[in-house]
Amino acid sequence: MYALYYAPGAASLVVHWLLIELGLEHELRRVDMQAREQKSAEYLALNPNGVIPTLIVDGRPHYEAAALAMYLVDRHPQAGFAPALDDPQRAEYAQWMFNLVSTLQAPLRLWWYPWDLQADDAAVRAGAQAQIETACARFEVQLAQRGPYLLGERLSAADFYLTMLMRWSRNLPKPAHDWPHLAEYARRMKARPSFKTLYEREGLTEWA
Amino acid sequence: MYALYYAPGAASLVVHWLLIELGLEHELRRVDMQAREQKSAEYLALNPNGVIPTLIVDGRPHYEAAALAMYLVDRHPQAGFAPALDDPQRAEYAQWMFNLVSTLQAPLRLWWYPWDLQADDAAVRAGAQAQIETACARFEVQLAQRGPYLLGERLSAADFYLTMLMRWSRNLPKPAHDWPHLAEYARRMKARPSFKTLYEREGLTEWA
Repeated sequence: MYALYYAPGAASLVVHWLLIELGLEHELRRVDMQAREQKSAEYLALNPNGVIPTLIVDGRPHYEAAALAMYLVDRHPQAGFAPALDDPQRAEYAQWMFNLVSTLQAPLRLWWYPWDLQADDAAVRAGAQAQIETACARFEVQLAQRGPYLLGERLSAADFYLTMLMRWSRNLPKPAHDWPHLAEYARRMKARPSFKTLYEREGLTEWA
Repeated sequence: MYALYYAPGAASLVVHWLLIELGLEHELRRVDMQAREQKSAEYLALNPNGVIPTLIVDGRPHYEAAALAMYLVDRHPQAGFAPALDDPQRAEYAQWMFNLVSTLQAPLRLWWYPWDLQADDAAVRAGAQAQIETACARFEVQLAQRGPYLLGERLSAADFYLTMLMRWSRNLPKPAHDWPHLAEYARRMKARPSFKTLYEREGLTEWA
C-alpha cells in the first residue's frame, strides 16, 4: 500500500502515472501548493526539501521523483519497465534516469524558478532555455537513431519521466514537442490509457 | 573489464574510487580537459554531453557518474554498497543518489561554471552558494540524527558520491566540511585505504 503526496502536474505526476500503470493500490493526498502546504511543518517532517512528491512506502516517507520511479518499477517488475540488474541495458537505463535529471530537469527548474538564484531572472531564463534546447536536441537524436523509446524497443520508467519533463516545457518559447521525433514519442506515450486516467484524477487539461 | 575516461578530481572520481574499492580490473584513459579533449569529435562519439566520465562496459560507452556508481555496486554486490532491490532501504538509497545530484551537485556545477547561464556570474554564484549551504545543512542533520553514513550503519555508493561532492566544495566560502558531522564523515571516508590509492593514481594532493 502506497500513499502519494501530489500536486496536479508537479513532479509527482510520473510517480502517479507509474502507480496507475503498475496497477498498484494507492491513496492520493493532495498538497495545496498555492497555500504553500509543501513548506508546512507537517510536510517538512516527511520531506525536509519541501518539494512534491513524497511517497509513503510501508509507512515510511521517501522522496525524489526519479528515485521513486526507479524504486517502483524495480519492486514491481511485472511490466518490465526496468532492465534487471544483470541485463546489458541496465547501465543505459540508469544513465537516462540521471541524464534526464541533470540535463533537462535542472534547467527546467531554473526556467520555472529563476528567482531561486540571485541573478537577473530574464538572464537566468535565457541560459536555462539554451540548456533545455541542447538537451532536447540530444534526446531527438537518440530517438531518431535508437527509438522508438529511450532504450530502443523497451519501454522503461525513463520514458514516463521524459514525457513528464516534456509536458513541463509546453509553454516555453520552444517546447520539447517542437522536435519531430520527440513529438511523435509524446503522442505515443499520451495514447496510453493510463494517461487519460492520470489526467482525470489530477484534473489536468493542458497538453492532453 | 572496464575502461574509464577520467580527469583528476572530476566526476570520474567516484567511479574510479568504486572500481578500486570493488577490486575490479580496469583501464584508465586520461582526458586532457585543459586541451578540451572532452569536446573532441572522438570523445563526443562516446559521450554526446562532452563531460567526464565515460565508462566502457563490455565494449559500450556509458555516462552519468551517479548512474555508473549505482550500476557498478549493483552489478558487483560483494561489498554490499547497495541495498538489494527487495531491501527496505532500497528506496532511501535511490533517494539519496538523486537528492545528491539535485540539491548539491547541480548548484556546485553552477558555482563552478556560472557562465553556463547568461546571467551575472557573481550573482549566479551567490544563489548557488545559498543552495549549496542549504543542502549541506540538510545532510548535516541527516548524519547527526541517522549516521554514521547516509543509510545509517550501511556504507553505500551514496557515501562515496557525497564525499566527492564535499571535495568539490573545498575552496568555497563555506565548504561542506565546515559542518561538524560532515567533517567527521569526510575524515572517516578519507581514512579508507582506497582513498590513498585513488589520490596516488589521479595525482591529487588537495583535501587529502
